[in-house]
Amino acid sequence: MDYQSFSRKSISDLEKIYRLNLINSVSGYKSANLIGSISEEGTSNLAIFSSVVHLGSDPAILGFIMRPRTVERHTYDNIMSSGYYTINHVDTQHTAMAHYTSAKFPSSHSEFELCRFKEEFIDGFSAPFVKGSPVKMMMKFEQEIPIEINGTIMMVGSIQHLMVSAEAIEESGIINLEKSNTAAISGLNTYYSPQRIAQYPYARVGQPSQNLLKE
Amino acid sequence: MDYQSFSRKSISDLEKIYRLNLINSVSGYKSANLIGSISEEGTSNLAIFSSVVHLGSDPAILGFIMRPRTVERHTYDNIMSSGYYTINHVDTQHTAMAHYTSAKFPSSHSEFELCRFKEEFIDGFSAPFVKGSPVKMMMKFEQEIPIEINGTIMMVGSIQHLMVSAEAIEESGIINLEKSNTAAISGLNTYYSPQRIAQYPYARVGQPSQNLLKE
Repeated sequence: MDYQSFSRKSISDLEKIYRLNLINSVSGYKSANLIGSISEEGTSNLAIFSSVVHLGSDPAILGFIMRPRTVERHTYDNIMSSGYYTINHVDTQHTAMAHYTSAKFPSSHSEFELCRFKEEFIDGFSAPFVKGSPVKMMMKFEQEIPIEINGTIMMVGSIQHLMVSAEAIEESGIINLEKSNTAAISGLNTYYSPQRIAQYPYARVGQPSQNLLKE
Repeated sequence: MDYQSFSRKSISDLEKIYRLNLINSVSGYKSANLIGSISEEGTSNLAIFSSVVHLGSDPAILGFIMRPRTVERHTYDNIMSSGYYTINHVDTQHTAMAHYTSAKFPSSHSEFELCRFKEEFIDGFSAPFVKGSPVKMMMKFEQEIPIEINGTIMMVGSIQHLMVSAEAIEESGIINLEKSNTAAISGLNTYYSPQRIAQYPYARVGQPSQNLLKE
């Protein structure tokens, strides 16, 4: 395989947009999620995030990465004032409007309206879900963890309520993301529709993984 | 859309394996990466991780989540003693052996050998790359960040050297993950081969996103 090689110095010397595109691509696929929140004044907010990461199953904990002084600031303020937010899968039919939530709309406007998503509420929680999203979670803010090296923040929350498209959930509890039509993201702006190629049992020494989908 | 709903209490009451499958699925797609490292005794180690997350482009910083007392312990020990590790994309042809690296092999054995990956070294760094991986990075350990709520750890590192399949890198710096054959993961054991469906320009107010791939 032919490679293009970059040293630390040559990465640092790259033109800014090229470097943003390259370095945002290197981690591979990322989850496409819309985070819903609501301000003290009652204005809802919706923003796309590609950094949601699994932290634990019991209790059910997820993290995501926040840049404090950027477009996502409304999300941060709303989470801090209300204590709650929602995480909603982006389906492959709605990537254009999901991407558009990253434009710098003023805080007095709701991306739900501007990007044509419908809000949905459940009893006991103020944060808005995205109606029709195949997997959606009500999250309680638990902790913010500063990442000193570059000033980003990991926001940690616990799942309070989870709704999964009945069609996509398998007997084992696994969510079939092909059936839920969940989109993947790479880099800053590329969206993918993945196809399932393999499912392996829990790995054990001496038993190389067999693809269960091909049995 | 019909949903299956889970309250916080009903998630906590689920049978353990069902809960692991469900909660590991809810964050959506994850990157499939092999992390390579080497012990003080010179035994190399290779382990699959699905939690690599972008933290910054300048300097180029990535994080991943580590559970301290589990199968990934060798990776942690090696990173702490040597200060370096590699992150290597898993291509769609090698998901079975990549998954098999998660079996609990003894520390005296190398997963490179047991799972039939070839090591590759570059001058000045001890950590082994995965030969043939389409995107591979030499990482310098920068910081470990404890996540108090459940004892997991975010490992933060900076890219020292990056090698990208020449065929997959576009003029803009974007890596086309379809061309690099990078695999995605969902949950604990399902692998996906994604197809590019859309690429949007930087989002600006008043300019809803147009799919550049369809132009």
